Amino acid sequence: MHRAGVDALLLMTEPEVRYFTGFLTPFWQSPTRPWFVVVPSEGKPIAVIPEIGAVCMQNTWIDDIRTWPSPRPEDEGITLLVDLFRTQLPTRQGKIGVPMGPETSLRMPLSDFERLRDTVLPAQIVDAGAIIRTLRMVKSEAEVAKIRHICTIASDVFETLPQHLHTGMTEVDIFRTFKTAMLNAGADDTAYLVGGAGPGGYGDIISPPRTRPTQTGDVLILDTGAVFDGYFCDFDRNYAFGDVDDAVKRAHATVYAATEAGLAAARPGTTCAALFHAMNMLLEAGGALGNTVGRLGHGLGMQLTEWPSNTAHDTTELSVGMVITLEPGMTFADGKVMVHEENIVVRDGPPELLSRRAPAEMPIIT
Amino acid sequence: MHRAGVDALLLMTEPEVRYFTGFLTPFWQSPTRPWFVVVPSEGKPIAVIPEIGAVCMQNTWIDDIRTWPSPRPEDEGITLLVDLFRTQLPTRQGKIGVPMGPETSLRMPLSDFERLRDTVLPAQIVDAGAIIRTLRMVKSEAEVAKIRHICTIASDVFETLPQHLHTGMTEVDIFRTFKTAMLNAGADDTAYLVGGAGPGGYGDIISPPRTRPTQTGDVLILDTGAVFDGYFCDFDRNYAFGDVDDAVKRAHATVYAATEAGLAAARPGTTCAALFHAMNMLLEAGGALGNTVGRLGHGLGMQLTEWPSNTAHDTTELSVGMVITLEPGMTFADGKVMVHEENIVVRDGPPELLSRRAPAEMPIIT
Repeated sequence: MHRAGVDALLLMTEPEVRYFTGFLTPFWQSPTRPWFVVVPSEGKPIAVIPEIGAVCMQNTWIDDIRTWPSPRPEDEGITLLVDLFRTQLPTRQGKIGVPMGPETSLRMPLSDFERLRDTVLPAQIVDAGAIIRTLRMVKSEAEVAKIRHICTIASDVFETLPQHLHTGMTEVDIFRTFKTAMLNAGADDTAYLVGGAGPGGYGDIISPPRTRPTQTGDVLILDTGAVFDGYFCDFDRNYAFGDVDDAVKRAHATVYAATEAGLAAARPGTTCAALFHAMNMLLEAGGALGNTVGRLGHGLGMQLTEWPSNTAHDTTELSVGMVITLEPGMTFADGKVMVHEENIVVRDGPPELLSRRAPAEMPIIT
Repeated sequence: MHRAGVDALLLMTEPEVRYFTGFLTPFWQSPTRPWFVVVPSEGKPIAVIPEIGAVCMQNTWIDDIRTWPSPRPEDEGITLLVDLFRTQLPTRQGKIGVPMGPETSLRMPLSDFERLRDTVLPAQIVDAGAIIRTLRMVKSEAEVAKIRHICTIASDVFETLPQHLHTGMTEVDIFRTFKTAMLNAGADDTAYLVGGAGPGGYGDIISPPRTRPTQTGDVLILDTGAVFDGYFCDFDRNYAFGDVDDAVKRAHATVYAATEAGLAAARPGTTCAALFHAMNMLLEAGGALGNTVGRLGHGLGMQLTEWPSNTAHDTTELSVGMVITLEPGMTFADGKVMVHEENIVVRDGPPELLSRRAPAEMPIIT
């Protein structure tokens, strides 16, 4: 913050508030109330939050908790923020940082933000996205342990899943079976589960489940972001219903091999672009017709996806402690895609797999 | 839109995109990519979205789907939006509406939004919050049916829950039991579950579950926002572990009676403020020491909470088809709160209960 010349950060999204305070609640599902944490360049963070969150925030390490009775549309924390910035925080540099760049959003009414910025705050608001990104991309061992735990739970469930599935089950039933198994295995929640099944492959990996019964020859993908203590896993598995086309098997072998190339390439100092090319070379050699996902993996942690991105243009260098996914995907026939994904933490040497490595061939469901 | 003088709406949050397109996916968990829907004042909405969403969007009623390969931080849909607004949309009024007011947020990087607004869009951007709010507050019967369905599922699970709980279970176990029962009963997901148990009452209703074993004399609240086909329920139930203090029983009787007053008052034409006062009178008569929730209910539907709010200052008039919660809550002792909640749809006459009315006395868990 000193180097960036900002006196304080003004943060408002769920992961930003949680990262600096430990404040964990599903209450963010309600869009009604804004929540703020101010991180001064010296001293502890200060919470400026709706009264309903005071007790929950008191259980964190934060001492300075300022609340207002919300909802109160005419003044949702604005007066409290102005008081704090005007009278109690140093204004050496005259700049307050708010994340504004890639992968950020503004979780407060735009009209309130503009009022704050243009008329009432005594400092200039500048982009602090890089500060947050740099901090959050490298995980502590405590963070890695939580991600490893949820990855292990999901690995266990993926491995035993074929025992609970049979040809003819609908996607809706399969999703329900998976989510129930995740709860029983110790996941707090399966906040993200997408996928689908189709004859000779699937065409889409972000849709909710359908009521169509699965059939012999179908390929199923399940891609899950389950949560333990606020940390996500994010990986997928493919399954074959009985015998499937050779084209599907070849596509699976290709994305599997591309993942191996990613594991071999993921070293401290390697750029995300280099990691992309290491995997993409194998996808192209395997006949990839394109990739609608737009990247071959990404960071993860407090969010299902975080910076960086394994694309041709992301020059972020991997460093020890970064948790990322390797997610080679390809279109291998008209309207058919194949996506594979594992979760790793970058180590001084080969990466540590957090998800248990998928089998080289798709498990068969009868 | 004609009356508001806007040529088009530019929308970007999950509920706004879904409301106008039917696009339903959990992929919003990923913050990486922005998504846009443009609603012209004449003609069908136009989707401007990342390539990964094209197949899923093709299953909706939208014909005009424009995609870009995302993530691409230097141009996340900006060029497509500018082309659309510059060359293909009418600019009679010279104004584009974006929701900016209470309960909204800006789900795109602020830096991209400012570039759009200040340098590249050919029209002025104005607040369209009122247009969206007015539309979404009144539900169609198809929407009501989905909310009724998930309310019925949650009512069933709440009613049979005492059979599956026993004194000594931890909150973590209780939450897991509830979520599993919800999946088995047909909920798509329990996206929101908060609550907790404590001796003689609980102090907080937004925290995640703890590992503390429940004890005789505890009071447990579970407040759930479960989902069916993208629509939420949002109500709670209180349970007594064995015999609990008379003060707790009186508090429960008070919030129960306040809910009855709310049911009697909720008629078309009644303001939310009048509804608040009808309930609050009983809370004050019952010895309420305050209410940290900040309101006595709110709208619900595609989101866990929506406009309006049952506060002293919200003068929104109820109208037929509005779905709201009645949520009287009170602090009844130092650090102890009691909250009750039901879901209703406003009808021409008495409201229809969507949640099945709670028992007047707390069910007892042994």
